[in-house]
Amino acid sequence: MPGQDKPFGIAIVGCGTVGGSAATLLVRDSRLLMERTGLKLELRHIVDVDFANARRLGLPENIFRRKLDEALRDEQTGVVVELIGGLGAAMETIERAIQAGKCVVTANKALLAQHGAELFAQARKREVSVGFEASCAGGIPIIRALTDGLIANRIDAIYGIVNGTCNFILTEMTQHGKTYADALAEAQKAGFAEADPTLDVSGGDSAHKLAILAGLAFAGRIDLDSIHVEGIDRLQSCDITFGQELGYIIKLLAIAQRQSDGLSLRVRPAFISKEHPLAWVSGPFNAVSVYGHATGHTMYYGRGAGGMPTASAVVADLVSVALGSQQSAFRHLRLWPDVAPPATQLPIGMVRSRYYIRTICQDKPGTFAQLATILAKHQISISSLLQHEPREDIQNSQQCGFKGVPVVITTYRSVESSVRQALAEIDKLDSISGPSVCIGIVDEHEENF
Amino acid sequence: MPGQDKPFGIAIVGCGTVGGSAATLLVRDSRLLMERTGLKLELRHIVDVDFANARRLGLPENIFRRKLDEALRDEQTGVVVELIGGLGAAMETIERAIQAGKCVVTANKALLAQHGAELFAQARKREVSVGFEASCAGGIPIIRALTDGLIANRIDAIYGIVNGTCNFILTEMTQHGKTYADALAEAQKAGFAEADPTLDVSGGDSAHKLAILAGLAFAGRIDLDSIHVEGIDRLQSCDITFGQELGYIIKLLAIAQRQSDGLSLRVRPAFISKEHPLAWVSGPFNAVSVYGHATGHTMYYGRGAGGMPTASAVVADLVSVALGSQQSAFRHLRLWPDVAPPATQLPIGMVRSRYYIRTICQDKPGTFAQLATILAKHQISISSLLQHEPREDIQNSQQCGFKGVPVVITTYRSVESSVRQALAEIDKLDSISGPSVCIGIVDEHEENF
Repeated sequence: MPGQDKPFGIAIVGCGTVGGSAATLLVRDSRLLMERTGLKLELRHIVDVDFANARRLGLPENIFRRKLDEALRDEQTGVVVELIGGLGAAMETIERAIQAGKCVVTANKALLAQHGAELFAQARKREVSVGFEASCAGGIPIIRALTDGLIANRIDAIYGIVNGTCNFILTEMTQHGKTYADALAEAQKAGFAEADPTLDVSGGDSAHKLAILAGLAFAGRIDLDSIHVEGIDRLQSCDITFGQELGYIIKLLAIAQRQSDGLSLRVRPAFISKEHPLAWVSGPFNAVSVYGHATGHTMYYGRGAGGMPTASAVVADLVSVALGSQQSAFRHLRLWPDVAPPATQLPIGMVRSRYYIRTICQDKPGTFAQLATILAKHQISISSLLQHEPREDIQNSQQCGFKGVPVVITTYRSVESSVRQALAEIDKLDSISGPSVCIGIVDEHEENF
Repeated sequence: MPGQDKPFGIAIVGCGTVGGSAATLLVRDSRLLMERTGLKLELRHIVDVDFANARRLGLPENIFRRKLDEALRDEQTGVVVELIGGLGAAMETIERAIQAGKCVVTANKALLAQHGAELFAQARKREVSVGFEASCAGGIPIIRALTDGLIANRIDAIYGIVNGTCNFILTEMTQHGKTYADALAEAQKAGFAEADPTLDVSGGDSAHKLAILAGLAFAGRIDLDSIHVEGIDRLQSCDITFGQELGYIIKLLAIAQRQSDGLSLRVRPAFISKEHPLAWVSGPFNAVSVYGHATGHTMYYGRGAGGMPTASAVVADLVSVALGSQQSAFRHLRLWPDVAPPATQLPIGMVRSRYYIRTICQDKPGTFAQLATILAKHQISISSLLQHEPREDIQNSQQCGFKGVPVVITTYRSVESSVRQALAEIDKLDSISGPSVCIGIVDEHEENF
């Protein structure tokens, strides 16, 4: 009978922001959890080398451990929660937990994106499971949406805003006209960006999450290194402004799309229509749009980071392990990277998309004709065009980094390699200043009911 | 081993829009489902009295049955899917399935909102489960969010747009300035409203869904009849327009809020800030915002009706039953109406909210002073005020149903019973024409991290 079950023992390894919050939920809110789940979740070990945070949170000192061994030897502990982060120690912790026959729960997107298949295979051999709801999009139950709620769907596309730092910066740039540098400083001040923001702003963190989400969605093993990744650090304010004039909002999107010839996976700044729900996602929030052949468009929105939101996902996984449902899903479903076949990942040149192209032209006769001729040669059709009356102040302000007249073109659906070739030719024209800018436009995915 | 399991037999009862789509997913997409789940889901019975739709869909005639008995006797059928709708026959089908020891999956919100506790108790006695993801918000996995992904949270509030018909009508009124009658006709033409739209536009359908969602979220048994319900059929265009001027969008919201003294459950048109993600949900789409003490705000968005989106939810439940996770959750969790204690539901007068009040004043000296005096007497503070310069055309056009000058007031947080008393007094003033309009304003729920 519920409530009379024996306690379900838990070890948390790494008591930082997320570990501390997960421990707090388990200890402070144990009665709430018991009332809601009928399960007695018992935190029996907090493993770390430094307990300053654990003490600050008032967690019980009698469960502080400096080594993992005690937790692994404890027969009443069924699950080890890895919240160290990074690769080395985290990988070792998970491998040792699996070898000891413990189920694993982790928030480690970098590790799973790179070594998921290997770790899952080890877990399968030992008949334990790996839960990782907390690895993507913090408190949003997006892993469950893909592995459970949407299981009946062939997933055709995912568009995700999965990095709160980048979304905060882009929101500041879009809504308040800030430069990238000012917006980054603002994000750091607000605690939404690290002192070294490289992993976030480069798109690397988003790529980790995309590898995990796309693997589950398409039931294919994803090669992280084959994901095309561009960051937001080279975006210029003028392009954000021009995009808005055309009805688009810039977002760092993690995109996975099924094309007839394979999967296109990419992380990069992209324009999305103001009408699309993702365009409304502002500040540090995350959201993931998923297109299924039966559901059509569904979207999941919430806080993508932070101790408590991420801890909510960790504890959800613990409950699933205690109920046995995580193990059952891990055993039967064919979505996991160790049992799924390798995905066919298309090189970026094979992406078919619409594009925003911005060049800086010298205001001379014939420049636009040259430009249009090159595009036509590469089978690229112009969908819209934006060129303002020349204004001294804009031309001289170097707002796009170069003196001249910015000309903005949006294209119809084209093959990316053709667009790149055309741009290389355009940039060689005497009448063009500096490298042209090219940003993908993500249209609402087609639904076929 | 996955894939070598014996087939999991399914009976679908009622082969209409949703039943036909669910059967299509199981039959047409059986290979996709097998590849994704590792399970062999076998549709063994389609029970109905009329097979026109089933034949049109090309479903296999050898599994058409006119009576339920054959499915119930079949030992290889583990689950009965009730998609008849309504109360009588649906209730009987579910009860008979439970008695025969079958798990049940249903999309029947009306039945669950009224007889959920009773049916769940019967299922518990027979050690089978009842899955109902398809009962709320179609293809959006919102039941799973509440019972699984957000299980670690004390839920503090739910705001839901859970009726696509109403949202379509309100979107037409808001974005295209249509009257209610014209927007309804448009919805009927587009297939988003029934010929008799009463259950939808009255708010009754939303109340059914709110009863189910709130029951799970707050782990309390909800009394459907105690939910305060108002529909959209009396909304006037002028109030939608005034609201927009003040930065608000009108939505039919299903609201469940934890107050210190109990739960407030209500369905009615409400103003929500243009900044809130729910304000962006347009056309027939649904969305549910859930506020958890750990996650903060999460939102779930998608198609709330239609054959295939709803069938996606049905099949997700079937997979959960085949994996055993539905049964485990049903057995252990304490969220279900037969094991949860009765919720303390507050009468509508005890709601604390902000309000939009619109009166039609005769343009005489002293009218506003009278109005303000009455509000002050009832401890209602004015947050903003909107009164345009009198314009002949507006005064004579009776745009709000009466001749006069519309005065719009928004209040600070007030107790609803006080607002109602104040309005009753205001409406008795000689200088006020016709009944005042009062619409709740839903603010972004506070998050406490």
